[in-house]
Amino acid sequence: MDRSAEFRRWKAQCLSRADLSRKGSVDEDAVEIVQLLNAQEQFFTTSSCAGRILLLDGGINGFEVQKKQCCWLLVTHKPCVKEDMIVALRKANGDAILKFEPFVLHVQCRQLRDAQILHAVAINSGFRNSGITVGKRGKTILAVRSTHGLEVPLSHNGKLMVTEEYVDFLLNIANQKMEENKKRIERFYSCLQHALKRETITNSQTEIKDPFDTHKKKRNQEKSHYKRITEDCDKELENDDADDPGINVTIFPEDY
Amino acid sequence: MDRSAEFRRWKAQCLSRADLSRKGSVDEDAVEIVQLLNAQEQFFTTSSCAGRILLLDGGINGFEVQKKQCCWLLVTHKPCVKEDMIVALRKANGDAILKFEPFVLHVQCRQLRDAQILHAVAINSGFRNSGITVGKRGKTILAVRSTHGLEVPLSHNGKLMVTEEYVDFLLNIANQKMEENKKRIERFYSCLQHALKRETITNSQTEIKDPFDTHKKKRNQEKSHYKRITEDCDKELENDDADDPGINVTIFPEDY
Repeated sequence: MDRSAEFRRWKAQCLSRADLSRKGSVDEDAVEIVQLLNAQEQFFTTSSCAGRILLLDGGINGFEVQKKQCCWLLVTHKPCVKEDMIVALRKANGDAILKFEPFVLHVQCRQLRDAQILHAVAINSGFRNSGITVGKRGKTILAVRSTHGLEVPLSHNGKLMVTEEYVDFLLNIANQKMEENKKRIERFYSCLQHALKRETITNSQTEIKDPFDTHKKKRNQEKSHYKRITEDCDKELENDDADDPGINVTIFPEDY
Repeated sequence: MDRSAEFRRWKAQCLSRADLSRKGSVDEDAVEIVQLLNAQEQFFTTSSCAGRILLLDGGINGFEVQKKQCCWLLVTHKPCVKEDMIVALRKANGDAILKFEPFVLHVQCRQLRDAQILHAVAINSGFRNSGITVGKRGKTILAVRSTHGLEVPLSHNGKLMVTEEYVDFLLNIANQKMEENKKRIERFYSCLQHALKRETITNSQTEIKDPFDTHKKKRNQEKSHYKRITEDCDKELENDDADDPGINVTIFPEDY
């Protein structure tokens, strides 16, 4: 079986199976992206989470939360109010931890080139910890990940270690992060639409020389509607963390 | 210039440049790995941080910390004691945030195949958020990243929002995470040594058919010293987060 046929078989099998997540369905804020990707022959999604605020009850004396074992005291994909969190915190027996987990998405890609295009979309939408995995049989997956989390221990052996005022303060921050996360998802969707449109134009023309270069030539021909998105999306893939002066970095020459 | 020559030129240029990080040198706990990688013709490191506890003073009303703009009130690559943190917290004018940032490493790789091998080493050492970036000119970088962080807002407009007891509790957790991080670095080093050894054996033999498959055939021939490490390191690259029941997941058939 050739690679394309094999990819189609994987996709059909994957999309026909039941959603095995606790929730059992794709999160509302991720649906548009998931549907858009699955409508393309070169992609299919294998997992997604739109972003959520979680309160986990870790095992007693277990600082390392094992998601499978721990109890979820609260989970919401919407902004969270203090009262709900306080009620959930009262149920903690172990070491409760509040987490904000941003958007995460795994997309299987037909070829490395498809993963590269999607990776550029992810990076330029603010998902700087995204990266490609290439398995030993050539299975190519792009993971879309953000740096934009929060992980705050709140109780120890069932005892709350902070004040209600702090919980309120913290939820404000978590809710702001959720808002910013939503903006990035919207940006990802716009950038993705734009990249797919560019691809369609490219593919309808002659041989592809460089999946990234064609954009500049096309820019002036495209509708003004895409202008802002184009400018936002058109940065090149870069070495993340390279602009953090705290990381030991060697800067590359500009001409590579 | 062919790809190998170009890679050698990049490597020479990169390694001859000054370390532009605030610290100006490679962190002690990352030195062995950095040296081992840079001694291989197929790799060179472009940035690294062994892991650190940070106290950042974010801008007033700025929940999103911009690393370049914010002030570092404290940074340590060793376990941190409460007294040092309290002194640093007193200097905060804005929204101070305590972070534990685990080991991070960027490695430029000669070929995708080299990045795949290093990626497997990273995943199997516990760095599950690792991923490959392939730039438009073929520049291939593996980012080694962990899921194992901590991000805790502690003060607001210069006012401490938690008790000293909580700071102590939090530092215990941060220090435990640093300990676990160190174990993962050691595991990464062992797995890397093992993978490089296996590569050398493979390359000295006939044509390479599969960079991963050869291991099983070799396993029985290798020294008992490597046995445990082999078992630890021999898992396949997997779709991270796929074991988290909270993420919308479709499970793949076993035979792909």
